[in-house]
Amino acid sequence: MKLNERGLLVVISGPSGVGKGTVRRALFNMPNHDLVYSVSMTTRPPRPGEKDGVDYYFVSKETFSKRIKENKFLEWAEFVGNYYGTPRDKVEEQLDCGKEVVLEIEVEGALQVRKQMNDAVFIFLVPPGRKALYQRLINRGTEDQALIDARMKKADKEFMLAHKYDYIVVNDEVNNAADRIMAIIRAEHAKTERTIHNYMKMIGE
Amino acid sequence: MKLNERGLLVVISGPSGVGKGTVRRALFNMPNHDLVYSVSMTTRPPRPGEKDGVDYYFVSKETFSKRIKENKFLEWAEFVGNYYGTPRDKVEEQLDCGKEVVLEIEVEGALQVRKQMNDAVFIFLVPPGRKALYQRLINRGTEDQALIDARMKKADKEFMLAHKYDYIVVNDEVNNAADRIMAIIRAEHAKTERTIHNYMKMIGE
Repeated sequence: MKLNERGLLVVISGPSGVGKGTVRRALFNMPNHDLVYSVSMTTRPPRPGEKDGVDYYFVSKETFSKRIKENKFLEWAEFVGNYYGTPRDKVEEQLDCGKEVVLEIEVEGALQVRKQMNDAVFIFLVPPGRKALYQRLINRGTEDQALIDARMKKADKEFMLAHKYDYIVVNDEVNNAADRIMAIIRAEHAKTERTIHNYMKMIGE
Repeated sequence: MKLNERGLLVVISGPSGVGKGTVRRALFNMPNHDLVYSVSMTTRPPRPGEKDGVDYYFVSKETFSKRIKENKFLEWAEFVGNYYGTPRDKVEEQLDCGKEVVLEIEVEGALQVRKQMNDAVFIFLVPPGRKALYQRLINRGTEDQALIDARMKKADKEFMLAHKYDYIVVNDEVNNAADRIMAIIRAEHAKTERTIHNYMKMIGE
């Protein structure tokens, strides 16, 4: 029996290279969940095979700018001339349907969301050490040394923002990290502040 | 990797008849856990077969009274001429060893513990409705109508104390309730306030 019927906005964030995407995929591969992935809105043109509403919501720059002014994004950013953002209305629709909306996002975006959605759950995914992150960036083999150094410099700043999150999850092993996140989602649904309203109704009947 | 090495004090409470004992047993039957049951101290004499330190810590009234004055109980109560209490030092020892100490306890005692142990986790176990509790008390078949009515009257007061707990768990099905409690324990270990200290050490190394 679920006392809290509304879904949760679950923000998974952490330094670049920590394995956010891998953990998110492991999470979605777990059985019996109501997780959905938040679909971003972008001004970038669709690539062959990309579907509107599935890969992204594709909109014009005018539409995007208008939505920024109307505060219709939980977060947004510009990247090489295009805009990317998380549409608030789409997220709210899913939450109202009882879906857990998972947002896998950079630290800067997560802190924007924090200001907009106070009842979201903020999870900081961290490597099992600074050296481990460095090793992962090296192992990717796709980036040159200057880029790796830049990412580590950025990570060192982001490491200091852990206190802004509700939970810290170590990505020592992908399935462990996904398990912990699933436990956090289950526990958050039982929190008194989320359940007391329906509990009082249930007891009153 | 466990960022929080200290165990948690997990207080499972709720109205009489809700099934606290059954849920606790289901919890202890789950695999891979560090749960231990808090052993109470009492002035009641041991019954045949009862072992000191296992069933209870058996002490004299003098010892018990002295410990009360020294604030050495997380909670205590008198029941038909004997004293029963939760010894703080024994609980702390186990927490320091990384054990999750489970306290299955009446509402009044739980609220005493709340005042003493701010970082404990307080779970309110509730029936799936007022009528369901009434039915459970009837089904026990061991109590007469006057006692059942008295228990319901007490439960009606206790139902109103849910807001004093961190989590509300519905005991609709014993294994569901135990699963939820296990998820709460896992999630609490990842909470930023419990992990940030070791996290900063880990990242600094």
